[in-house]
Amino acid sequence: MRALVKPGPVPGMELREVPTPDCGPSDALIRVRAAGVCGTDLHIWEWDAWASGRLRPPVVIGHEFAGEITALGAEAAAEGLLAVGDLVTAEGHIVCGHCLQCRTGNAHLCTRTRIIGVDRDGAFAGFIAMPASNVIKLEGIPVEIGAIMDPIGNAVHTVLAGGEVPGSTVFVLGCGPIGCFACGVARAAGASLVVASDFNDMRLSLARGMGAHVTLNPGRDDVLARVRELTGGDGVDLVCEMSGHPAGHAQAFAAARLGGRVNLLGTPSRPTEVDFARDVIFKGLTLYGVTGREMYSTWHTMARLLRAGQLDPRPVITHRFPLERIADAIGVIKEGKAGKVILEIAP
Amino acid sequence: MRALVKPGPVPGMELREVPTPDCGPSDALIRVRAAGVCGTDLHIWEWDAWASGRLRPPVVIGHEFAGEITALGAEAAAEGLLAVGDLVTAEGHIVCGHCLQCRTGNAHLCTRTRIIGVDRDGAFAGFIAMPASNVIKLEGIPVEIGAIMDPIGNAVHTVLAGGEVPGSTVFVLGCGPIGCFACGVARAAGASLVVASDFNDMRLSLARGMGAHVTLNPGRDDVLARVRELTGGDGVDLVCEMSGHPAGHAQAFAAARLGGRVNLLGTPSRPTEVDFARDVIFKGLTLYGVTGREMYSTWHTMARLLRAGQLDPRPVITHRFPLERIADAIGVIKEGKAGKVILEIAP
Amino acid sequence: MRALVKPGPVPGMELREVPTPDCGPSDALIRVRAAGVCGTDLHIWEWDAWASGRLRPPVVIGHEFAGEITALGAEAAAEGLLAVGDLVTAEGHIVCGHCLQCRTGNAHLCTRTRIIGVDRDGAFAGFIAMPASNVIKLEGIPVEIGAIMDPIGNAVHTVLAGGEVPGSTVFVLGCGPIGCFACGVARAAGASLVVASDFNDMRLSLARGMGAHVTLNPGRDDVLARVRELTGGDGVDLVCEMSGHPAGHAQAFAAARLGGRVNLLGTPSRPTEVDFARDVIFKGLTLYGVTGREMYSTWHTMARLLRAGQLDPRPVITHRFPLERIADAIGVIKEGKAGKVILEIAP
Amino acid sequence: MRALVKPGPVPGMELREVPTPDCGPSDALIRVRAAGVCGTDLHIWEWDAWASGRLRPPVVIGHEFAGEITALGAEAAAEGLLAVGDLVTAEGHIVCGHCLQCRTGNAHLCTRTRIIGVDRDGAFAGFIAMPASNVIKLEGIPVEIGAIMDPIGNAVHTVLAGGEVPGSTVFVLGCGPIGCFACGVARAAGASLVVASDFNDMRLSLARGMGAHVTLNPGRDDVLARVRELTGGDGVDLVCEMSGHPAGHAQAFAAARLGGRVNLLGTPSRPTEVDFARDVIFKGLTLYGVTGREMYSTWHTMARLLRAGQLDPRPVITHRFPLERIADAIGVIKEGKAGKVILEIAP
Repeated sequence: MRALVKPGPVPGMELREVPTPDCGPSDALIRVRAAGVCGTDLHIWEWDAWASGRLRPPVVIGHEFAGEITALGAEAAAEGLLAVGDLVTAEGHIVCGHCLQCRTGNAHLCTRTRIIGVDRDGAFAGFIAMPASNVIKLEGIPVEIGAIMDPIGNAVHTVLAGGEVPGSTVFVLGCGPIGCFACGVARAAGASLVVASDFNDMRLSLARGMGAHVTLNPGRDDVLARVRELTGGDGVDLVCEMSGHPAGHAQAFAAARLGGRVNLLGTPSRPTEVDFARDVIFKGLTLYGVTGREMYSTWHTMARLLRAGQLDPRPVITHRFPLERIADAIGVIKEGKAGKVILEIAP
Repeated sequence: MRALVKPGPVPGMELREVPTPDCGPSDALIRVRAAGVCGTDLHIWEWDAWASGRLRPPVVIGHEFAGEITALGAEAAAEGLLAVGDLVTAEGHIVCGHCLQCRTGNAHLCTRTRIIGVDRDGAFAGFIAMPASNVIKLEGIPVEIGAIMDPIGNAVHTVLAGGEVPGSTVFVLGCGPIGCFACGVARAAGASLVVASDFNDMRLSLARGMGAHVTLNPGRDDVLARVRELTGGDGVDLVCEMSGHPAGHAQAFAAARLGGRVNLLGTPSRPTEVDFARDVIFKGLTLYGVTGREMYSTWHTMARLLRAGQLDPRPVITHRFPLERIADAIGVIKEGKAGKVILEIAP
Repeated sequence: MRALVKPGPVPGMELREVPTPDCGPSDALIRVRAAGVCGTDLHIWEWDAWASGRLRPPVVIGHEFAGEITALGAEAAAEGLLAVGDLVTAEGHIVCGHCLQCRTGNAHLCTRTRIIGVDRDGAFAGFIAMPASNVIKLEGIPVEIGAIMDPIGNAVHTVLAGGEVPGSTVFVLGCGPIGCFACGVARAAGASLVVASDFNDMRLSLARGMGAHVTLNPGRDDVLARVRELTGGDGVDLVCEMSGHPAGHAQAFAAARLGGRVNLLGTPSRPTEVDFARDVIFKGLTLYGVTGREMYSTWHTMARLLRAGQLDPRPVITHRFPLERIADAIGVIKEGKAGKVILEIAP
Repeated sequence: MRALVKPGPVPGMELREVPTPDCGPSDALIRVRAAGVCGTDLHIWEWDAWASGRLRPPVVIGHEFAGEITALGAEAAAEGLLAVGDLVTAEGHIVCGHCLQCRTGNAHLCTRTRIIGVDRDGAFAGFIAMPASNVIKLEGIPVEIGAIMDPIGNAVHTVLAGGEVPGSTVFVLGCGPIGCFACGVARAAGASLVVASDFNDMRLSLARGMGAHVTLNPGRDDVLARVRELTGGDGVDLVCEMSGHPAGHAQAFAAARLGGRVNLLGTPSRPTEVDFARDVIFKGLTLYGVTGREMYSTWHTMARLLRAGQLDPRPVITHRFPLERIADAIGVIKEGKAGKVILEIAP
């Protein structure tokens, strides 16, 4: 099969012929139809410090995808839940199932997590083999949406962690694809006001397409003043910090109301100075670090929202490329011209 | 002023001239513009066992209303939160503020609660005096909606108690006005499926008007079979029991999924047989009894949903009468021809 | 190996030689040292309506046990978490792992649950084979306690469901072994007052041994009056309904404070009449049906409490018998003379 | 009456004769018997940047106290909850009761909070007038304990925020009086392991007296290594950050387990560098800023724990002085020789 491979400790990826993966006894073999390109893939392409410290090339890249089951291992078949021909996506974090986290509802924090396209072969390929327990049936969700349920799930986790979104005010700080999805999730979950900010106007336009009531550009707008004005001076109930910038953190804490909540997904590359007394303690704030998707309650809620049509992420998809045009896909992301970019792998 | 008074221990009400109430130091005096007629008012009109055991006539009836502040007591004025001319509604449960319940977030369960229009003079009148702390500013919510925020708040409390409505499946059992409001609240809060049932087709039509995806009439439909079919065999995440009928209870428990939730608001007039082993324990159900509105988080969330236009209760309003036509108002309710009935008291 | 078998659709059990069970690839084979006799085993012995409707003889009885791992299947060994020689107990509910319940934190409610000693061969035997994922290492917990962690876990689940036990008042209604354990769990979890009731004075004595501050016998005491007196007239924060008697339910609802909680574990054999208006709705109560143990957070918390010595269930153990004296074990339970009864199977 | 007054914008306090405060209509006048000296009082004594920015001298100092009611205003008397002669303490945060925070369960975060002994006259005096709604009856709690329920309440809030303490592992970082109280609260609430750290061995000895299982001195011990060793490598479920030092923050985040919680009470005087990616996001941590005491659920739980004898804070009290020896009281605190210091004002 064809696959995009990080061949060695160098920038870029290579389109190669590689063997179709084996389908283990508890696996599903999936013919990949579409895959999403993620910021993580950009780090891998660039071979930055994080990538070179984590990947062990050669490895097939790609962790967001959807496709069709073409084979099932004996145990997976015996379970009777999946069938050849099913259209599916999958949770890309493969966890141990046995540690304290896995056994107490925090499998998304398993220390033995192996991520497809990072720690083992991924989905920018003709086929991928996945543990059956990680596979999610689309059951009516379009394949193109299925291909990006991994990052949509990040947004669902970020918006819904801590509950009480109906009737609330939400500030989404950073409008990359997951930030844009978060705007849509907040609207679908009944937020009364969704404000989004980003320096990139194209991204703000995507955020509006996902339902943000108000978009702000820190290059032009006094973001904090506007957030306060829009909330009667109180600040918002929930900040979704999607930017990963230290300046974003300060703004996040300042924008949250007394007793409010800041859920942090954007991963900063350097430390942030925090005035805990002023910004956290005297404000009675709750901060929560978001990793991955809750397994599998996030997936369950997300599938409901997508199937009912409450959440439609397609306005965020701006580009579609075939596998061989990965350099173009990476390019539009680097240039800040893209929302979500899809690789169309098979019809 | 004019007022509808229960004059003594007899059926009916009487339109009388009575003195305008005094405005105490911590009170707001409110000129009533519109008031809602509630099932409770029907019990009072009929002078049934509950009414005759609770009311001490003469008393002015009516507990759902909105109007305009015409005077403020000295302490209320000093607080600076309310002003003469403000359009307002009010929480009709006047609580002690000192008991265990009041001091630990359960003021709606205060044992010393005095309800306007039941335990003290109410709102079917030219004016009502209310403690300023019970008064809620409309701030843009239309007066007619303000007049029924009491029962809308019951619906908000019922739907949101226990959280996690976004993406959930909800079954509203009983489509009186509060059941209809509950359909709208569930939709506004992001439920993926709202099913409503009632024996009265007119009410089902109102429920659809509030956003119910599917309505069922137990006189024609196999309700449980349909609920299971609509939920892939699982049953719903949340049942809102609004009927108060023992048959409704059995259906509520059967319709909830394993690990689901039944929030009960409809108050039955006789005991129900419950098979706790089959219906509650082996199903891991949570049941919750809904009294009033949480003070004042329910009001806060409700006002947000109404102001943002996420929830519009007006399709449920079917009749409007002047004060002197109370007998007609009671009549349409008794005949099952009405959704919510409004008394228009002042322009 | 020797095993206590329900040989056919008749009362009693038979001590037989049966083949040692196979150890599947993901199983642990465990040499049973001690096992607990449960009320369920009494139903099976008597061959009552429930037992005859559920069991498919011949089946080895017994679902509470502890022992030593003597063999591991290849997959179980590869996981590296268990080793031959480990002293262990196990969750006796074997679940599917794939259904909505299993995937969203409610595996204890899996509809495909198969219970050892009921739906498949159990632990009143020389050996039992268990899926490795169900096995819990004792790591310092004495074997005799390990043998009864299944019912202790029921008590942990019942007391801790709904949270907020520290500083609370708890009423344990019914002092069979699980009720007695619940008294100890409530004390370990920081309850400020634990009241227990039962008609059997021996059981009340065991409850006191587990830390109940006050014990009441409904044959002599006005239980409700005393609960109210002990709680300043408020009623308790949490009732643990362990009796399964309709009379117990009425008392449970009446004993709970406004806004309180009733967690129901005792499974009644017939329906209960409930006055939902008076007892649930106007009181704002939460009811919760307890099934099994949360997998595996209940086990984690329980192991912590046992290892730290905060909870010592041994005062509840009143009798120890060898396997061949099962009739005597059943006898002392039937006569109401026993707390927890242990079968000592191997040294 | 005599009172310790901050006379003007200078260090120190002055013992003066001042008029006994008026008892307003909704007030209780309380004869102060004992008062606690707090770190805040040290800041006021020193007249540091915070104190000079906030206080408007002359003001009577002191916010922790207990005493006897000697008079009640007319409204306070009419409520019937307090009586002359009652032994009481009081919540020292006087809130507006009307803002979003006050109306939605977050009164401890009211922006209009006025603190006794800071923003208005306090308790280092013969008498103090308090709003009746802030007054808490001791009902059996010794006066000396009543005098320090304010900081004990801080500890209760810090330990119990987020729930699930029974069976958990807790690390108390910083053993000033509130940290020491937190050790006792964690034990009373059923924590299975309580580890405490401080550079001051006397304080560690007080922490042990309050029930800490293990105490660590960062000057001698590798705190993180020991915390990990004591928790099987996982880290603790809950960190109570009581030190307010940036170094404490880093240690707090590192000591928490994946999915764990850090509740922050210690207020740092300068910003902290936080590696959000490593320490919060990838760990799935929850951080919570603790302000004051929840009004009044913290007080309710605290009173229960104290009355039941589960929590006894007296080992932390190291010094008792009469009012005129305030300089000595401040001195022992500054020198790090004191746990809790009490001013004995009246017999």
